[in-house]
Amino acid sequence: MSIPDYSDFHLGPQNGRITFAKSNSEYFDPPMFKPLDDVASPRAPSSPPFSVLGVDMRIVDNKQVHKTSRYKNSNLIVRRNKEFIIDIRFDRPFNEMQDSVDVEFLIGSSPDRNRGTSIVVSFGKVKGEMIWNCRVINKNGNEVRVGITPDPSCIVGRFSTYVTVMSNLGQQRTPKNPKTDIYVLFNPWDPADQVYMKKDEDRQEYVLNDVGVIFNGEFNNISPRSWNYGQFEEGVLDACLLVMDAGKVPLVYRGNAIKVVRQVSALMNSQDDDGVLVGNWSGDYSIGTSPTAWTGSPEILLKYARENAVPVCFAQCWVYAGVLNTFLRCLGIPTRVITNYCSAHDNTGNLKTDIMLDEEGKLNRSRTRDSVWNYHCWNEAYMTRPDLPQKFSGWQVVDSTPQETSDGLYRCGPTSVNAIKEGELSYPFDARFVFAELNSDVIYHQVDKYGKTKILSVDTAYVGKIIVTKRINANQYEDITSTYKYPEGSGRDKQVMQTAESSGLFSDDYSPPAEAGLDIQLLADTITIGDDFKLTMNIKNQSSQTCTINATISGAVVFYTGVTGTNIKLETKSATVEAWKTENLLINVQATDYMPYLVEQSNLLFLVTGSIEETGVSLSTMRTVTLLPPELTIRVSGSPRVGKAFTVIVEFRNPYNFAMENIQFRLDSPGLIPTKFKSYEQILPGGIMQYTESITPSNPGKRVFIACLDCARLRQVTNQLEINILEN
Amino acid sequence: MSIPDYSDFHLGPQNGRITFAKSNSEYFDPPMFKPLDDVASPRAPSSPPFSVLGVDMRIVDNKQVHKTSRYKNSNLIVRRNKEFIIDIRFDRPFNEMQDSVDVEFLIGSSPDRNRGTSIVVSFGKVKGEMIWNCRVINKNGNEVRVGITPDPSCIVGRFSTYVTVMSNLGQQRTPKNPKTDIYVLFNPWDPADQVYMKKDEDRQEYVLNDVGVIFNGEFNNISPRSWNYGQFEEGVLDACLLVMDAGKVPLVYRGNAIKVVRQVSALMNSQDDDGVLVGNWSGDYSIGTSPTAWTGSPEILLKYARENAVPVCFAQCWVYAGVLNTFLRCLGIPTRVITNYCSAHDNTGNLKTDIMLDEEGKLNRSRTRDSVWNYHCWNEAYMTRPDLPQKFSGWQVVDSTPQETSDGLYRCGPTSVNAIKEGELSYPFDARFVFAELNSDVIYHQVDKYGKTKILSVDTAYVGKIIVTKRINANQYEDITSTYKYPEGSGRDKQVMQTAESSGLFSDDYSPPAEAGLDIQLLADTITIGDDFKLTMNIKNQSSQTCTINATISGAVVFYTGVTGTNIKLETKSATVEAWKTENLLINVQATDYMPYLVEQSNLLFLVTGSIEETGVSLSTMRTVTLLPPELTIRVSGSPRVGKAFTVIVEFRNPYNFAMENIQFRLDSPGLIPTKFKSYEQILPGGIMQYTESITPSNPGKRVFIACLDCARLRQVTNQLEINILEN
Repeated sequence: MSIPDYSDFHLGPQNGRITFAKSNSEYFDPPMFKPLDDVASPRAPSSPPFSVLGVDMRIVDNKQVHKTSRYKNSNLIVRRNKEFIIDIRFDRPFNEMQDSVDVEFLIGSSPDRNRGTSIVVSFGKVKGEMIWNCRVINKNGNEVRVGITPDPSCIVGRFSTYVTVMSNLGQQRTPKNPKTDIYVLFNPWDPADQVYMKKDEDRQEYVLNDVGVIFNGEFNNISPRSWNYGQFEEGVLDACLLVMDAGKVPLVYRGNAIKVVRQVSALMNSQDDDGVLVGNWSGDYSIGTSPTAWTGSPEILLKYARENAVPVCFAQCWVYAGVLNTFLRCLGIPTRVITNYCSAHDNTGNLKTDIMLDEEGKLNRSRTRDSVWNYHCWNEAYMTRPDLPQKFSGWQVVDSTPQETSDGLYRCGPTSVNAIKEGELSYPFDARFVFAELNSDVIYHQVDKYGKTKILSVDTAYVGKIIVTKRINANQYEDITSTYKYPEGSGRDKQVMQTAESSGLFSDDYSPPAEAGLDIQLLADTITIGDDFKLTMNIKNQSSQTCTINATISGAVVFYTGVTGTNIKLETKSATVEAWKTENLLINVQATDYMPYLVEQSNLLFLVTGSIEETGVSLSTMRTVTLLPPELTIRVSGSPRVGKAFTVIVEFRNPYNFAMENIQFRLDSPGLIPTKFKSYEQILPGGIMQYTESITPSNPGKRVFIACLDCARLRQVTNQLEINILEN
Repeated sequence: MSIPDYSDFHLGPQNGRITFAKSNSEYFDPPMFKPLDDVASPRAPSSPPFSVLGVDMRIVDNKQVHKTSRYKNSNLIVRRNKEFIIDIRFDRPFNEMQDSVDVEFLIGSSPDRNRGTSIVVSFGKVKGEMIWNCRVINKNGNEVRVGITPDPSCIVGRFSTYVTVMSNLGQQRTPKNPKTDIYVLFNPWDPADQVYMKKDEDRQEYVLNDVGVIFNGEFNNISPRSWNYGQFEEGVLDACLLVMDAGKVPLVYRGNAIKVVRQVSALMNSQDDDGVLVGNWSGDYSIGTSPTAWTGSPEILLKYARENAVPVCFAQCWVYAGVLNTFLRCLGIPTRVITNYCSAHDNTGNLKTDIMLDEEGKLNRSRTRDSVWNYHCWNEAYMTRPDLPQKFSGWQVVDSTPQETSDGLYRCGPTSVNAIKEGELSYPFDARFVFAELNSDVIYHQVDKYGKTKILSVDTAYVGKIIVTKRINANQYEDITSTYKYPEGSGRDKQVMQTAESSGLFSDDYSPPAEAGLDIQLLADTITIGDDFKLTMNIKNQSSQTCTINATISGAVVFYTGVTGTNIKLETKSATVEAWKTENLLINVQATDYMPYLVEQSNLLFLVTGSIEETGVSLSTMRTVTLLPPELTIRVSGSPRVGKAFTVIVEFRNPYNFAMENIQFRLDSPGLIPTKFKSYEQILPGGIMQYTESITPSNPGKRVFIACLDCARLRQVTNQLEINILEN
């Protein structure tokens, strides 16, 4: 092995201590020539002088073999543990019995062989120990074709390439040339790589698909939202490396998927570390872009890079998950976006969500400190976990939404999905927090006027209702609840709770209230914002006694985070239900009740609390209703063909009696057009917005249009349209 | 249970999200009166009006029972899960069939029952669910004596106390009164507490001893340095709470010893978070106090508190360990300071320390990126680990010296000592880093002039040579190596390495060089700075062949962190050693060789590298020699008695031919005098510094004087003297 002499090695400001490089954009440029007296010794290899005329990185061919052709980047991009082939041209034929050549790959400002930041491969007479493999494939006149294979755990990032030849005169190195820089990525195709994935269809979706669907809405009404991941777009790979540089991720960590994923889960959010996205749940996004207005990741990452790592305003969970998905796929780590419906945000990790009701049955906003998010998005990343017992390899939860600090920073994971399912929560990272998001109990308390409280009822099935992700090769959702949980109430489910408790999950004791014998559910149809509607209170008597119930139904507007706003409804109802029978009571809700108070994403929370006259036993239930926004339509004129112009038309009609103002509109189509942005000052009541764009496709195949309209009074107005571009 | 109505509960700047209190110094002052119409209902308890005239916290009696009398703090200080008794005086006799009284303990700006930041205990007619226990002990006229027991996992910190009575008029609360505030601490005496410690002699040392010894020097020459922990000194407890407030440790975490220890290991150093101490290994401490000049923790913690959480300059490892020891003992967590001799600082966690030698055999400073610290100090804290399998409870390593970031912040631990010993490194926190500090191999490489390297030899026994701590009830060291490691080379030792590797410890492959058959050791006597001395190179031939060795001995000044400075010696030696025989070669080192170059703590590093003529096999070894500073003497005049003045005299003579300048001098004696500080401009060659102080003791018993003299040319000049103060 060979260590270049980097005499400017930084000892850092503290003489007594050693420091290390944390940036891929800073680099060390070694001297081009090291003369004889410094190099030679009586044992110096003697070879007639020769020098390097050129290096051909064979970019197109190598990229094809390495499955990196789709990256819009003019440099060579390779994957670990797979050979790439370069041609080196000398000024005379290379003689392997006599000549010695080193090819060096350097990363960062103080390359060091022992840290993997200086890689040297050699061919010819003098060869050292090598970490990357190197072989001469053939010689052709003055040219030598060399195959080089990065080791399967090497650092991922951008390396400078140098070629050095040794002669009687000294050591001669090629000058720095950014065109011969190479990017090395993770390699899910290679069994020796930490992120190896067996099935090709999985890799196609989780590594190479650059457009996807993120699910939102509520569990009875799962809505898709298309997202442009755009990991191959021009500048995105560099932006991803910048994220790690700005976040000071040490270069030596960047070959370890566990460390990359953990550090980047912190770097997606601006908390602590000026990461990519500023979280904002306030409803006021006037100084930036509202979280609901984005159509994809490239716009965000490129803005972050263009503005030199200033955090981008604003994000909520699906934006974090979308951008993290881009980041990981771009670096070659398989990943997907997950939505957990009814996701508990358990602030103390005690596996309880406390809902405090006042004597009337209304939610007491100031006393309710926990919340259940209507839905919450996170990512899964696929990798082995050599740091843990083998069964915990595979999908890992990673969540970059700044919900709670994990060990001091806002981040979460990677935590093994298998470990969550089995309740084995001792292992890193953040298993307890994720487990609580999926398994908390909801406890309804009533507070009387003296401040004394009692437990009304407990719902063990409300949280973690269904967990979904985009299906491979389709836009529908796949229900992956069973990868996270055993069926509620099953024997295994109880066993898991015991395992979880023995790994230090504090589950506060409470005496569960008596069984009510009645089951109440709130049912609703699909409702569009502005509709009057009826909610059905379905009361099932599951006992052998007649029950009379006196119930209060309260309603409030609610953020998707479960934090409630204005109360919009308070009504009492009574019903007598015979043994084993069911009754339905209807609750009327008028548009005028809720329209003035709606908060973003247009959710209403209804809460029923009641007591049974015959037994005095209490019961409670709640239900979030997501009101649908009016439709945004997308259509195209004619059938799109390569080389022919066609038109896409997006239309929206304001159905309300108020004017919509300061509207942001985005149209996106990965691989077809860059994100188009337009703002409108106003859409009057009944007014129509129409956006048209003429497009001439250059490649055939399936494409998707993603359109999004956003203003303060109406958010989450999106649609998508798949088209097929024909050959000409 | 009862929840006060804190209507100013902070939703934080983001309406859609909930945030939580992170400060013990901010508080919420609830209203003194809540009138009838807000409180009463037809079911209101009817009781003749009465009110609270006074609350007696019975501070002296309670403190005695809770073992907190030594804290110089006028408030009540109690420990978890132990009853304390207070007297409440009303304006008429209390009637428990009729009257309702709540005692509230509130902490932080938004107290909440569900977070443990609002504790309410009740007695009388209306009682709710209670987390802390409460009982009426007796009634005496208008006074009621109440016993209250904090729960064994409650938050540790300062609570405000309120008493509320309920009457027909409303709820009447006592005004805020800082004198009735109570501090709640961890309780190592109680089996239900997470930090329970069985033996009383252990608790006396690890919780209550406020003075100790930290070991430094080198493993052949273990030197004690007394340290004033001073956890009971006035202001220290408040300073410790301030550390957590400044570090934004959420109040809800402050009852969990794991979280407290982990967060505070980050907060002792100023990196990331403006913690207590600024690390500095540069040799230039002119803008602060040099790390070697301190005599104890109170001076540092009180300065940090006085200057409003501005980090204090400067610290190295024993200062961090000393202050963390104070912090933990002050809060009631058992702890001790550990010294690991030859502590590897493994930057990449690959279990290797690479020492790069040039062709001459000198250490190549610019190519050697790893270092072995001469010694390194950390702490152990004692606790159960409910988050881990049971066998990992007990002593936990915690290290606040900013060596490497752990999961993004400079901190380390808690990590189970048992887990380190067994090589079970999957569990949190930082087991791999600590394991490497104790178990790395030292690999000697030689770099030739072409930059090619080869491995010369490997030393598997150099690192983690001996691990010591202060003995209970004595000032000598106790060798606790066997709690961290099985004997080097034993069967269990090899098994542990396998376990460690299967928990993802990345041990780079290398082919170990051939066995040399010779063993070389460098031996030295005790040497004082300024002495000429001889080093003995002891060569043992352990083979059946005669061996001729040609060796190079190089020497350099070295920081205690293992980073080398100027080379001071380069000599070659040859010897022929017959089979099974031993030879000693002497190497002369003159004071003039090293005196001009010495760096702080006056260490020299000697490196031997040689090859055997007969076999060509290489071998290497190294040895640090710590030169002792000239003596600082402490003596007292007469025998100290309570109430009588005596004099303490500290003397130092400059034995060198240069003037010492800008000298800092400290004299400390916990429980006897506060830290005395004096600076001297100059001590001329041969000059004498004499410091005297007249003291009149007020209490009998053993005390210790700790003296320390420090200047740029001479550091680590300390001494201690134990005295016994007699009754008058």
